[in-house]
Amino acid sequence: MVRTLSLAFALVATVAAQAADKPTRIPDAALKTAEGLRERALSDNTAWDFTEGLTTEIGPRLAAGDNDAKAREWVVAKFKSLGFDKVWTEPVKYPKWVRRSEHAQITAPYPHTLAILALGYSPATPSGGISAEVVGFDSLDALKAASNDSVRGKIVYVGPRMHARKDGADYGLVGSPVRTGGPSLAAQKGAAAFLLRSAGTDDNRLPHTGVTSFEKGVTPIPAAALSSPDADLLERVLKRGKPTTIELALDCGIEGEYTGANVIGEITGRGKPNEYFVMGGHLDSWDPGTGAIDDAAGIAIATGAAHLIAQLPQHPRRSIRVVAFANEEAGLFGGKAYADAHEKDIAHAVLGSESDLGADRIWQITASVKPSARDAVGAIAQVLKPLGVEYDASAEGHGGSDLSAVHAAGMAAVSLHQDATRYFDWHHTANDTLDKIDPEQLRQNVAVYAVVSYLAAEAEGDFGSAPGAFPQKKEE
Amino acid sequence: MVRTLSLAFALVATVAAQAADKPTRIPDAALKTAEGLRERALSDNTAWDFTEGLTTEIGPRLAAGDNDAKAREWVVAKFKSLGFDKVWTEPVKYPKWVRRSEHAQITAPYPHTLAILALGYSPATPSGGISAEVVGFDSLDALKAASNDSVRGKIVYVGPRMHARKDGADYGLVGSPVRTGGPSLAAQKGAAAFLLRSAGTDDNRLPHTGVTSFEKGVTPIPAAALSSPDADLLERVLKRGKPTTIELALDCGIEGEYTGANVIGEITGRGKPNEYFVMGGHLDSWDPGTGAIDDAAGIAIATGAAHLIAQLPQHPRRSIRVVAFANEEAGLFGGKAYADAHEKDIAHAVLGSESDLGADRIWQITASVKPSARDAVGAIAQVLKPLGVEYDASAEGHGGSDLSAVHAAGMAAVSLHQDATRYFDWHHTANDTLDKIDPEQLRQNVAVYAVVSYLAAEAEGDFGSAPGAFPQKKEE
Repeated sequence: MVRTLSLAFALVATVAAQAADKPTRIPDAALKTAEGLRERALSDNTAWDFTEGLTTEIGPRLAAGDNDAKAREWVVAKFKSLGFDKVWTEPVKYPKWVRRSEHAQITAPYPHTLAILALGYSPATPSGGISAEVVGFDSLDALKAASNDSVRGKIVYVGPRMHARKDGADYGLVGSPVRTGGPSLAAQKGAAAFLLRSAGTDDNRLPHTGVTSFEKGVTPIPAAALSSPDADLLERVLKRGKPTTIELALDCGIEGEYTGANVIGEITGRGKPNEYFVMGGHLDSWDPGTGAIDDAAGIAIATGAAHLIAQLPQHPRRSIRVVAFANEEAGLFGGKAYADAHEKDIAHAVLGSESDLGADRIWQITASVKPSARDAVGAIAQVLKPLGVEYDASAEGHGGSDLSAVHAAGMAAVSLHQDATRYFDWHHTANDTLDKIDPEQLRQNVAVYAVVSYLAAEAEGDFGSAPGAFPQKKEE
Repeated sequence: MVRTLSLAFALVATVAAQAADKPTRIPDAALKTAEGLRERALSDNTAWDFTEGLTTEIGPRLAAGDNDAKAREWVVAKFKSLGFDKVWTEPVKYPKWVRRSEHAQITAPYPHTLAILALGYSPATPSGGISAEVVGFDSLDALKAASNDSVRGKIVYVGPRMHARKDGADYGLVGSPVRTGGPSLAAQKGAAAFLLRSAGTDDNRLPHTGVTSFEKGVTPIPAAALSSPDADLLERVLKRGKPTTIELALDCGIEGEYTGANVIGEITGRGKPNEYFVMGGHLDSWDPGTGAIDDAAGIAIATGAAHLIAQLPQHPRRSIRVVAFANEEAGLFGGKAYADAHEKDIAHAVLGSESDLGADRIWQITASVKPSARDAVGAIAQVLKPLGVEYDASAEGHGGSDLSAVHAAGMAAVSLHQDATRYFDWHHTANDTLDKIDPEQLRQNVAVYAVVSYLAAEAEGDFGSAPGAFPQKKEE
C-alpha cells in the first residue's frame, strides 16, 4: 500500500513537470554524425584490443586480490594511450575475501570427487574439512518448509536448474536467489554447510561461483557451488535413498578491508564540459576465469565508443565519461562509492548506461527518463534500428548494476540489453575467457554505445536527471 | 609400390575365393524378427540404466586404478542380473600409471594459472616442478623442422586445433598424432617438457588427457595438455614476443604392473552355440570424467542389444557375446589379450563390432567381410534404413579399436559409425558425464546393434572369418 501511494504521488509530480517541460530534442546534424559513428564502429577493433589486452596481460581480477591494483594501472595507462582528456581514480573500500582451495567428495555410498567452487564471503571449513550427511532440496521453498531437525548438522544441497533465456531472467528468478539466500537460510536451520547447483545454464564440469551473504546475527557456514553435472550426479546418488556423506574442505574467508578505486576516463565536451554521459563496466571479475565477458567487455565497449567519439572532428557538447567500476561482484562497492561521490551533481549526469551482460548483440533499448525526453530516446533508437535494436518504450531501463545507486539518486538511465542466451553458460566460471567473445558482436555493442552516448551528449534539453527524480520501486 | 603390389595379389585371391563361395544369406524370418527387435529397442532403457548405473555407482575407471576391479565386479553382477547365460573374465596385464596432481602457470611476462592434465604415461617432474622458457610451434612438422638448439632445455608447446566433424577425422589427422608423437619428438630434441593444445573441439577450460608414448631409447619427459582457451592464452602471450616462462609440476608415473580382466557375457545360440557375434566397448575410462561417452555407453549399447535378443521367444542360431574390454585407453591391452585368447578359434567369431565413439546416432554401416557376404550386409542394412543408417559398400569397416587385433587375426567386422560431431568436445575430459548422452540417441544405437548382431547370428553362411582373412593395410 505504501508503495502504491508513493507511486501515485510520483505520477502527479511527473505530470506537472511534463506540462512545464519542453521536449528534449536530438539535432539533425547529430543524428547524421551518429550514423557515421555507427558505421565506423562496425570496423573498429579498439574494444577487442582492450578485452584481449586486459584478459591476456592481467587476467583474473578478484576484488582485493593481487590483480586489483595491476588492472587499475593497466586501465589508467590504456585510457591515457587512447587519448582520453582526463583520467583519474576515486577510492573505494571493501572487504578482502580470499580463496585458497576447495575440495569436496562424496564418500558414501559411492566415492566421487566433486567439482566445486566456494561462494564469495563463504567462511572456511575447519582445517581438514568437515564430513556430514547430505540432505537435498529441489528449491529454496522446500528448504524453507523443512524442519530444523531434518537439517541440523547436515550439509544442505539445493538444486533448481536455470534455463537459458534471451533476457537472462532465470538468473534473477532461480540462480541468484538460491546462491545469495540459501546459505543464510540453511545456517539459520543449523546446517553444517551449504551446496547448490551452480547458477548457470551449461553442462560443463566448471562450477559457477558468485557472492553469497548472511543475514545479521546468523553465523556464516561454508557455502559452495557444484557444477551442473556434479549436481546431477549428487541427485542421482540421493535418489537411491542410501545415506549419502560428503567431505567438504574450503580454505577461504574475509581478511580485513581493502581500498581499491573506480578508474574514470573522460572525453571533454565542447560546450557543456561539466555535463556528461556516463557508461562503463566493472573491472573486477571472479577469479576462475579471466573476466572477459564479465566484465572486461563492458569497459571495452564503453572505451571503444568513447574513443570513436574522441576521433570526431569536434567533440560533442557534453563530455563522455567511461567508468571502470571497482568490486561489483561482491556487493556493488564501486557503484555505491561512485554514487556517494557524484550524487551532489546528479543533474550533470545527463544519462547513463552500464554494459554488464557479456558481449552478444544488443537487441533492445529501454529507458528510465522524464516523459518529455521519450521522443529523444525514440530518435536515438531510430539510429540503432539498422543494428537490430528495438525500442520498448513501455519498459524501464535502470542502466545496469553499477549505475543502480546513482540512478536511484536521480540520474536518468538507459538499458542496452544484450542477448543473454549464452551468458550464463560461462558467467562466474573458469570458462569466462576471451574466446567466448565474437568480435563482430562486440563491435555491434560499440556501435550502439557510440550512438547512444554521442546523441545524449548532443541532446538539446536533458533526460530528467535531478535529485530523487527516479524513485526506485523496491522489489518485494 | 610394395603396397600396390600386395593389394593386387589380394584382389586375385579374393576373386578366386568369391567364385567358389556360396553367397551368405539372411533368412526372411530373421529379417522380420529383426524389425521387431528394432522397434522394441527404441523404447528399451536397459542401455541407459547400465550407463547411469556404472557412471553413478562406480564413476571414473582409470585402468589399474581403484575402480578397475570395482567396475569389473559391477559388470559381472549386471550381466548376471540381466540373465546372460554365461559370464566370465579373462585376465589382462598392463602397466599401472597413476595421476596424483598437476599444476602449471605462466610466470612471465604475465602470471596466469593454466588448466592442464598430464598425459597417460607422462613421468613426473622433479618434486617442486620445473621452470623453463616456452617455445611454441604451430604443428608437429614445425617442431620436426626446428633445430635441437632452439628447443633444448625448453618447454615445447605445439598447438594445432581440431575441428568438429561428423566422422571425427580430425582426431586421427591432428589431435592424436600430436599427443602420441609430440612428447617423444620433443624429448629427442632435448626439451624439458611438452605441452599441447588439447586434442578436442570444444572451448571449455577442461583439458583433454589421453595416452602418449615414447620411442625406445628416448628418455620420457613430462607431458601435459592445455585446455583450448589456455592454449589460446599462451599463444597470445607468445605472440607478444617477450620471453615466456612456465612452471610445471606433474606428480604422476608408472608404478609397476597390474592384472585386470576383460569381462565377457554371452547369450547362448540355439543351433551353433560355439559360433558367436561379438560386440562391446571398453570398461576403463580416463579419470577426470565418469567415462559415460567413453565408453560406458559402448558396453551399455551392446548389453542392451544382447538383452533384447535374450528376451526373444528363441535365441538366434549363433551366440551373442558382449565384451567389456580392459584398458583400451593406455594401449588396447584388453583387445590384444582378447585376440591372443581367441585367435585360435577365429572362424567361430562370425562377425564383430565395437562401439567406442560415444552415443550419438549411428549414421553409417561399413564392413570388412568376404565378397560373397556383401549382399548379406546389404540385407542387414535394409533393416537399419528406417533408423537413418546408410550402407557404404565401398568402404571397409574394421570393427573398432578393441577388435582391431582380432580383426587383424582374421575376424570379419562391421563398423557402425556414430555421429562424432560432439564427441571430441568431451572426450577424455571431466565433461565426459552422463548428461552428455541423449537417451533417444542411445536407444537408436541399441536398435542398430540388436539388428546387426541378431542377423549375423542368424545368417546362413559366414562373413569370411578365417585365420589371416583380412590382412591389414598398414597406414603409411
